[in-house]
Amino acid sequence: MKNVLLTIVYDGTNFFGWQKQPNQRTVQGELEKALTLLCKTSIVVNGTGRTDAGVHAWGQCASFSGEFGIPVDRIKVALNDLLGTGRKAIVPKDVFVKDAVLVPDDFHARFSAKGKTYVYRIRNNKDSDIFLRNYCYQVAEPLNQELIKEAAGLLEGTHDFKSFQAAGGEEKETTVRTISNIGIEKEADFLTISVTGDGFLYNMVRIIVGTLVEVGKGKITPTEVKTILEGKDRQLAGPTAPAQGLYLAKVYFDMI
Amino acid sequence: MKNVLLTIVYDGTNFFGWQKQPNQRTVQGELEKALTLLCKTSIVVNGTGRTDAGVHAWGQCASFSGEFGIPVDRIKVALNDLLGTGRKAIVPKDVFVKDAVLVPDDFHARFSAKGKTYVYRIRNNKDSDIFLRNYCYQVAEPLNQELIKEAAGLLEGTHDFKSFQAAGGEEKETTVRTISNIGIEKEADFLTISVTGDGFLYNMVRIIVGTLVEVGKGKITPTEVKTILEGKDRQLAGPTAPAQGLYLAKVYFDMI
Repeated sequence: MKNVLLTIVYDGTNFFGWQKQPNQRTVQGELEKALTLLCKTSIVVNGTGRTDAGVHAWGQCASFSGEFGIPVDRIKVALNDLLGTGRKAIVPKDVFVKDAVLVPDDFHARFSAKGKTYVYRIRNNKDSDIFLRNYCYQVAEPLNQELIKEAAGLLEGTHDFKSFQAAGGEEKETTVRTISNIGIEKEADFLTISVTGDGFLYNMVRIIVGTLVEVGKGKITPTEVKTILEGKDRQLAGPTAPAQGLYLAKVYFDMI
Repeated sequence: MKNVLLTIVYDGTNFFGWQKQPNQRTVQGELEKALTLLCKTSIVVNGTGRTDAGVHAWGQCASFSGEFGIPVDRIKVALNDLLGTGRKAIVPKDVFVKDAVLVPDDFHARFSAKGKTYVYRIRNNKDSDIFLRNYCYQVAEPLNQELIKEAAGLLEGTHDFKSFQAAGGEEKETTVRTISNIGIEKEADFLTISVTGDGFLYNMVRIIVGTLVEVGKGKITPTEVKTILEGKDRQLAGPTAPAQGLYLAKVYFDMI
């Protein structure tokens, strides 16, 4: 048996999210269709994160195993040809496999992951850039970066993030998570918020960003962010920032 | 009567081109719908260039006239609100009006135009960037920039561009056009070809680019480009480069 780890880039715009669903185009569904053809045996892929519709990935990971003939070092090229992102594609499609490597039998892209970095891109300008409409959150009002940095610092560390969990996700044993870093960077019109942690609750990054945007607008003070955390109530936090600004950037399989 | 000139940005991906057509979503169609609502009178817009499906614009121009109450300095904001690219749009749509100005009664965006610049973006890398699939032409084989520059220089000036005209466009009186400049720039993976001229035949820029790509691959020599021009036969030139790399960048209303 071979166990293989894929690193995958996708544009979430035209996907109904990662997870396979009947009658919906999903990333897992497209990968399984292509891999089943390629491996000539039914393949199930296990992804690290279940991204929602519209959310992108620069480095989603997924593992799959099976008895198949194709050598692992040929999977990347053959899979991208099937996915429509191979070298001959004149207009490539929206999912691309960056890497395929052999991993030990007990490796699992979800259970072996030690952490993830999500990146959220905000474009802060009064006019829309329509070419980026599906790739960032356009905020017209000026955002105060210093206030955002101060509030973000208060969210780093180990906390109960219940106020930053949306309804509708999987039932989790605990809502305590550790955020090792929230990076805030400004370059031209773009404010990029990078959140690295050991695990994330449903919509957690988008609610953190939605709250930080309120802080940037001056509607929530950094001190109030502490109160929001302590209140353990979703109603206290800011809105959920839209899906199109979010990227699953990196998965860590060793200690982060 | 007021005569108004609009400067328009659009992402051509989800449009069936510029020109209004029954049962198709077109840029002209969307603008006329919104302007007719805004001006409370039936509006027809005249665009400078009729871009094909998938072709983008950074600076398309269009004029319209009529008797209407709305002040010209309020048109931009009101029109973008109707088009879904105003400041309140969480996920903006794909057409944005950059500017709206009053022009003399005899001004016409098409007939008053003295020239245009089209920009064509090629991404030259063996791997696809799926986020750019609708915004450039991805070429996997290495391209020789010096050969492309040499061939491009031979196309500058006044020539009969019959070999670079696709079937299916409007009947034109003459196929002689003047290209005042073809600029070739390389930045990171991107090769950008900017073509400025007094007028363009149907698909002319895309056939020029398709031919220059063949030159870059070493399949056509720069000298052969001269032979192609002189042959006045579409069969001699290279393929039509795909729509998604092309941008109508700028329209000139004075001498260029």
